[in-house]
Amino acid sequence: MKNMKEYCGVFGIYNNPHAAYYTYLGLYALQHRGQESAGIAVFDGRKIVYHRDFGLVSSVFSHRILEELKGFTAIGHNRYSTSGASDSPDNIQPIVVSSRIGKIAISHNGNIVNALLLRKKLEDEGSIFRGTTDSEVIVHLIVKSKAITFEDKIVDAITKLKGAFSLLIMADDKLVAVRDPWGFRPLVMGELEDSIVFASETCALDLVGARYIRDVEPGEMIIVSKDSIKTIYPFEGLNCRRSQCIFEFVYFSRPDSHIFGKSVYSVRKEFGKTLARENPVDADVVIAVPDSGLVPAIGYSEESGIPFQLGFIRNHYVGRTFIKPTQKTRDISVKVKLNPVPDVLSGKRVIVIDDSIVRGTTSRKIVRMLKEAGAKEVHMRISSPPTRWPCYFGIDTPTKDQLIASSYTVEEIAKFIEADTLAYLSLDGMIKAAGGRECGYCTACFDGKYPVEIPEEIIEQAKKES
Amino acid sequence: MKNMKEYCGVFGIYNNPHAAYYTYLGLYALQHRGQESAGIAVFDGRKIVYHRDFGLVSSVFSHRILEELKGFTAIGHNRYSTSGASDSPDNIQPIVVSSRIGKIAISHNGNIVNALLLRKKLEDEGSIFRGTTDSEVIVHLIVKSKAITFEDKIVDAITKLKGAFSLLIMADDKLVAVRDPWGFRPLVMGELEDSIVFASETCALDLVGARYIRDVEPGEMIIVSKDSIKTIYPFEGLNCRRSQCIFEFVYFSRPDSHIFGKSVYSVRKEFGKTLARENPVDADVVIAVPDSGLVPAIGYSEESGIPFQLGFIRNHYVGRTFIKPTQKTRDISVKVKLNPVPDVLSGKRVIVIDDSIVRGTTSRKIVRMLKEAGAKEVHMRISSPPTRWPCYFGIDTPTKDQLIASSYTVEEIAKFIEADTLAYLSLDGMIKAAGGRECGYCTACFDGKYPVEIPEEIIEQAKKES
Amino acid sequence: MKNMKEYCGVFGIYNNPHAAYYTYLGLYALQHRGQESAGIAVFDGRKIVYHRDFGLVSSVFSHRILEELKGFTAIGHNRYSTSGASDSPDNIQPIVVSSRIGKIAISHNGNIVNALLLRKKLEDEGSIFRGTTDSEVIVHLIVKSKAITFEDKIVDAITKLKGAFSLLIMADDKLVAVRDPWGFRPLVMGELEDSIVFASETCALDLVGARYIRDVEPGEMIIVSKDSIKTIYPFEGLNCRRSQCIFEFVYFSRPDSHIFGKSVYSVRKEFGKTLARENPVDADVVIAVPDSGLVPAIGYSEESGIPFQLGFIRNHYVGRTFIKPTQKTRDISVKVKLNPVPDVLSGKRVIVIDDSIVRGTTSRKIVRMLKEAGAKEVHMRISSPPTRWPCYFGIDTPTKDQLIASSYTVEEIAKFIEADTLAYLSLDGMIKAAGGRECGYCTACFDGKYPVEIPEEIIEQAKKES
Amino acid sequence: MKNMKEYCGVFGIYNNPHAAYYTYLGLYALQHRGQESAGIAVFDGRKIVYHRDFGLVSSVFSHRILEELKGFTAIGHNRYSTSGASDSPDNIQPIVVSSRIGKIAISHNGNIVNALLLRKKLEDEGSIFRGTTDSEVIVHLIVKSKAITFEDKIVDAITKLKGAFSLLIMADDKLVAVRDPWGFRPLVMGELEDSIVFASETCALDLVGARYIRDVEPGEMIIVSKDSIKTIYPFEGLNCRRSQCIFEFVYFSRPDSHIFGKSVYSVRKEFGKTLARENPVDADVVIAVPDSGLVPAIGYSEESGIPFQLGFIRNHYVGRTFIKPTQKTRDISVKVKLNPVPDVLSGKRVIVIDDSIVRGTTSRKIVRMLKEAGAKEVHMRISSPPTRWPCYFGIDTPTKDQLIASSYTVEEIAKFIEADTLAYLSLDGMIKAAGGRECGYCTACFDGKYPVEIPEEIIEQAKKES
Repeated sequence: MKNMKEYCGVFGIYNNPHAAYYTYLGLYALQHRGQESAGIAVFDGRKIVYHRDFGLVSSVFSHRILEELKGFTAIGHNRYSTSGASDSPDNIQPIVVSSRIGKIAISHNGNIVNALLLRKKLEDEGSIFRGTTDSEVIVHLIVKSKAITFEDKIVDAITKLKGAFSLLIMADDKLVAVRDPWGFRPLVMGELEDSIVFASETCALDLVGARYIRDVEPGEMIIVSKDSIKTIYPFEGLNCRRSQCIFEFVYFSRPDSHIFGKSVYSVRKEFGKTLARENPVDADVVIAVPDSGLVPAIGYSEESGIPFQLGFIRNHYVGRTFIKPTQKTRDISVKVKLNPVPDVLSGKRVIVIDDSIVRGTTSRKIVRMLKEAGAKEVHMRISSPPTRWPCYFGIDTPTKDQLIASSYTVEEIAKFIEADTLAYLSLDGMIKAAGGRECGYCTACFDGKYPVEIPEEIIEQAKKES
Repeated sequence: MKNMKEYCGVFGIYNNPHAAYYTYLGLYALQHRGQESAGIAVFDGRKIVYHRDFGLVSSVFSHRILEELKGFTAIGHNRYSTSGASDSPDNIQPIVVSSRIGKIAISHNGNIVNALLLRKKLEDEGSIFRGTTDSEVIVHLIVKSKAITFEDKIVDAITKLKGAFSLLIMADDKLVAVRDPWGFRPLVMGELEDSIVFASETCALDLVGARYIRDVEPGEMIIVSKDSIKTIYPFEGLNCRRSQCIFEFVYFSRPDSHIFGKSVYSVRKEFGKTLARENPVDADVVIAVPDSGLVPAIGYSEESGIPFQLGFIRNHYVGRTFIKPTQKTRDISVKVKLNPVPDVLSGKRVIVIDDSIVRGTTSRKIVRMLKEAGAKEVHMRISSPPTRWPCYFGIDTPTKDQLIASSYTVEEIAKFIEADTLAYLSLDGMIKAAGGRECGYCTACFDGKYPVEIPEEIIEQAKKES
Repeated sequence: MKNMKEYCGVFGIYNNPHAAYYTYLGLYALQHRGQESAGIAVFDGRKIVYHRDFGLVSSVFSHRILEELKGFTAIGHNRYSTSGASDSPDNIQPIVVSSRIGKIAISHNGNIVNALLLRKKLEDEGSIFRGTTDSEVIVHLIVKSKAITFEDKIVDAITKLKGAFSLLIMADDKLVAVRDPWGFRPLVMGELEDSIVFASETCALDLVGARYIRDVEPGEMIIVSKDSIKTIYPFEGLNCRRSQCIFEFVYFSRPDSHIFGKSVYSVRKEFGKTLARENPVDADVVIAVPDSGLVPAIGYSEESGIPFQLGFIRNHYVGRTFIKPTQKTRDISVKVKLNPVPDVLSGKRVIVIDDSIVRGTTSRKIVRMLKEAGAKEVHMRISSPPTRWPCYFGIDTPTKDQLIASSYTVEEIAKFIEADTLAYLSLDGMIKAAGGRECGYCTACFDGKYPVEIPEEIIEQAKKES
Repeated sequence: MKNMKEYCGVFGIYNNPHAAYYTYLGLYALQHRGQESAGIAVFDGRKIVYHRDFGLVSSVFSHRILEELKGFTAIGHNRYSTSGASDSPDNIQPIVVSSRIGKIAISHNGNIVNALLLRKKLEDEGSIFRGTTDSEVIVHLIVKSKAITFEDKIVDAITKLKGAFSLLIMADDKLVAVRDPWGFRPLVMGELEDSIVFASETCALDLVGARYIRDVEPGEMIIVSKDSIKTIYPFEGLNCRRSQCIFEFVYFSRPDSHIFGKSVYSVRKEFGKTLARENPVDADVVIAVPDSGLVPAIGYSEESGIPFQLGFIRNHYVGRTFIKPTQKTRDISVKVKLNPVPDVLSGKRVIVIDDSIVRGTTSRKIVRMLKEAGAKEVHMRISSPPTRWPCYFGIDTPTKDQLIASSYTVEEIAKFIEADTLAYLSLDGMIKAAGGRECGYCTACFDGKYPVEIPEEIIEQAKKES
């Protein structure tokens, strides 16, 4: 099953004559959150029309297709999945169904840890499923709810869910935004003239020209309708602590976005500064592994006083179709993407900043490239703590035994990647740099403290898939 | 809604190491029954994998895709729908769902006249629908059935249906073939080494090299499993008369096929012979509108003694992408497909055979082309009676007021299409040529006697759509 | 080199506001003469713009591309070559070059037997060649001519050529049509309102709605300019006999065309009648291998009184992308295209008409299919004499040793293809059916009497290529 | 004509079993020099095979195509042209022709200013041209030369040329590299095991794993053959000064490359440092317009002590197919590519570094974006002098009257682009930063001093085209 391994970006807009086009722009800005497939569903006051396909936003939508998506309310979705080729078109979102309460469209970012359980129960009651995503479970729960109003049906459904869900639901001439009570994934609200806009990150608001109003709060459900914007808190009484994904700052969100009320750029730079204070080393130059290492590298440079340089040039023309050599003599997969700048590196003691180490093999290639380009010493600094635990809330990480840091010490890893020294940001330093414990972060991938209990079957399943 | 306007071809094979490839071949042979989309689902003993897309069989499947469809049992489907562009991928078959009784795949040819009613009821009970086809209703009925065994669930479901359904259902390591008790659409059974094969027409058996065993009988349900081939008659007691679609002989089936236990070629030729006896005319040459007019024209020629010639050459390279002239001075749409042969026509009294007249506009173009090519007289002969009533059982016909024969007399039509004379095959003559009344045919499109009562809402809906 | 193996279709129009569109239509009608690539060049009074690509006319041209081809004079070209994949885009026609006499575009159908010699001479003088076609030689000869006027340059060039050339040349605000003095390949002239039209066959005139005026005569050069249509005979004095390709009637031209002043349909039917007289056999039914066998089969049936039936149904959906079985147990390549009609064949003595036998392997598959479908006897009749000699004038035939008829007797071939009897049309019968010796035909592929001496190197080259 | 407006990248390799694949890699690394079309020609000891098409290297070549390009010597070419759609496939390089001296392939980077004159002369002598590029002229000159040896023919040809040409010529089992005597465009030589490699920039050597040997010198011609690497200086005696394009450092070459014997990164950073010394301003942050502004911005920051930040995030998913809004209310073209980081900019005095200002309209959009993102002051600094003169040697610049700096003062431009201050790098500062006058640079785009006299017709033509 694919449902454990998804990143996603969501976007929605209510009451705008160019709803589909703005959603297209919004998905464009959120493309980094999912490149596998894209979709837009539009409500025209009477029916929902939609278009979805595998591919980047720019290839899924054409001028003609956008013109056919007529309507005043729209939601969109970018999706990432780990095995595109064999994936089913039935999994592409937004999901659109018809039911006794009419047409419903839904865009979901996150991962529901009790989805299998709920799905089994629904199947037992006679429900059928087309795809394999968690998201389909949510739709069934809404439709099957015995509550009277549309909003109460949603409340009924979402209070059954455990895990991560930033949701946009379009039905009944309303646009509903929900963020799970833990607040795992981001979701922001903005306004554009008379329209209300929701997006995974503020960079999407910026591109469509919308003004940021505020975050959708963890546990909040916002119902936008013709006459009102109403907010309710369906999870009150539920005993749960705020658990916003701190990894969004490390790698996933775009540096020009604000999420969880904070600038990604500033937090990420603070990671670099803290890293420099915690793990100083005498060197000639600070460089980054582009792109997510750039901002912490600037922070590291500022704090340490060691000059920042562009040690790698990224090839912008690398597509999915790069042809690998048939002769297996040389490894070229990283080199086509990242080209070291000999003049910056030759004869230098180099600090290189990367956001994380997963299996260690890419890091080793990077260290080797730097040394081949003439670096005298290579000191790798990682702008997050060692990643030791898999994520079950919507970020694709390998299982524990594939995470190098869960089996090896920092010294052993340093040796494996052939770096002269290796150091990580401390967990405390990271939390402090992100605003402190009072902000409420999920750091499970670093410390294994999952805010929601993970069912055994989910853990087993994840192992089998990877 | 699109569900009233579908032709389809189905194919299935049980217990064959090349199941996907044979299904590909079978769909290839059945391409004339639907060119809009194609799909194959394969069961490998554990799970169902599938591939579906818009387009011809040859473009939907590649060598690589077929290789990924590993398994020993497969079903496939070709589909035709009237408005491809705006059609939803959710409507492409086989439908594959997961449910409490596991994975189920279904291929359906025909049209269920009480589908809207059943769908509404299912929705009221909380079911959700992805697409707009009748076929999705069948899957829901099977899954929701309270019967214990898989077979009983199918029986439960299909006995609720009114209308046309030749079905292939794959689940539970079984392949089930069903033909509705009226027997509207064809469905044949064959064998290929140790495998059992089902197909809409025998031409698919021929291409895969299977031996024809017999037709699936109207009202019969055949369950193929590891150990047995079992047949049951779930509709016994239902008061219904055999109503096999006689139009399959006129136009839809391929002349090299056997359906309803008869050779399409022979029946179609007999139509031509009867037409000649019923409507003789003094002339120099008999020609056909290719391709469905060819066989009756040969029959007409044989009976009348007037020589048969190729009056039209069909352009094999006409694709969907023919660019129409921007200057609207000349009508070219028929002419690019059919090119008259002046030498056959010039100065001649010409009998031209076509299978039917729908709106009359194409017939008029044909008569004009013949006269421009030098025909002295044009006598149009139609190898079926006047089409006066819409079909609700799976053939795409316009509504009554668009059918020229439902508003005009034969003389008026002759005048409209500018033919010197026009004559149709008689209904009695047609039935006799097809084996007589005892064979049990649906002739509703000619006489309005629908074997199943058509709900008012279906009639209304059909009007709106056309 | 590819230059020995080309069929082609040419079309041109002078002085028409829709020149590109009519040329598109003309190429559409001539698609059977070449399916590998297509191109159109248009003159707008100042410059020549063009578009060319691999593929069918319908895929090479879009609405947008046609709109960009603005101008009043146009020429087009369809090309067939035997090895598409490795073929060079530099060979696609029309060839368009710029030179001291301005821009020139040329479309060529046929094969120049002294092209290699001329090319070598031109290269020796410093000319460079992009592609490998004969046609490029003609352009060089025109441009290098020391004659003063454009027309004299063309005369200078074409009088150096030996072999087959039906040419359209566009330059200097003129459209020039040339047919070689032997008249190997067809070329006709028509008029459409104020425009002059040229085409390989009259079926192209018919589709654009032009009136046939007459054939361009062998050895004639027609210069169409603003003020006049001038005709000259540059080859007068050259001792050569008219040698029109009789194989155009057998297979290549479309039955609705007139070429060499005769109806292809009528000549082809006469082939069938003569064949019946020369080679009668007692049988129950006459069938054809579609499509080129259809018309002679009708002739054979008329003459013999044995009824004509459609013994094969052609699958219209066979594209280039048919996936062959990986298990090599059964031969399926012919069967996907041609489906025998069991009801026509079963228990019958069958006469099957084909246009020619090349290697014999396809014929054997056809005989086997007929027998598998139940034919009691199969009598193959070929509507042309045994093909024993390769063509060097523009038809793609294998070398002598690959032509089964050049090494085996009719009896031996009959045995090889497993037919009960086999008979060919006689050469005399064929010529008589095509109007008699006075019409002047090239029958070299049957009798080896080449109207132009074939240089040794051409023969050698042809051997190497096949 | 398109020949005045081309960038290009060239690559060649001699004597390698993976010649085509290495050339593919080399073109991949040089993709930034031309994105319109790509091609590779390979010599297999007997003949030249080639593949060329419009598009990026990654889309032009597939695994299958590379495998068909068998041979030990290869040259490749990336091309940029200003009007892709209407461009002719005849212009895609390498040009491959056959001639009296056999097959020749040529890849050319640069622009020949006397090409029109030479072309006219060649046409007068009877040569014909397929495309519109300068490069075709070179091939003709080589072939028409009366010199005896292949090398002397090349010498004969290239000594007739005036302007920019870095050439790779493959013929006669040799690979020849030429750089014009002015040395306008770069060309480097490397070695990979037993193979000799040539490339526009060293980044291509790095990717294929070749070792840089040295630059091909201005005026040098290197002939690589089986037995030897020979160098000759065909232009000796020609009175011309070394004129290497200094703009290659500013914008065009990749920062990880060495060209003209210097590190692009180092020179570009030195531009930034000099700019800081020449044009200091009190500010809070230095940012860059990515990507070419990044390195000088780092230099500016280092020199000024004002911290460098990432003020813009570049969207990596912007393709050619971005759909523009139909409502023209907001300008979005720059914003989809560059997203300002509010947190870096808000309330700050910002120095923004760009490489050049052409028309000024993009700069104005950038200033506006920065101010909208909260910048208090925007000080634009340009890492080159004002661009006042068009380039005729291979860089696509608009005509004089479209270059804002040729008509307006720096103050006027500052006002137009709405910057608080604007300053450029001085010409002297630039030359010094690039190593001093003794290195020999062409600075014509800044000072109008063209190293080669530009024919009047070229100037006129350039005006007409833009």
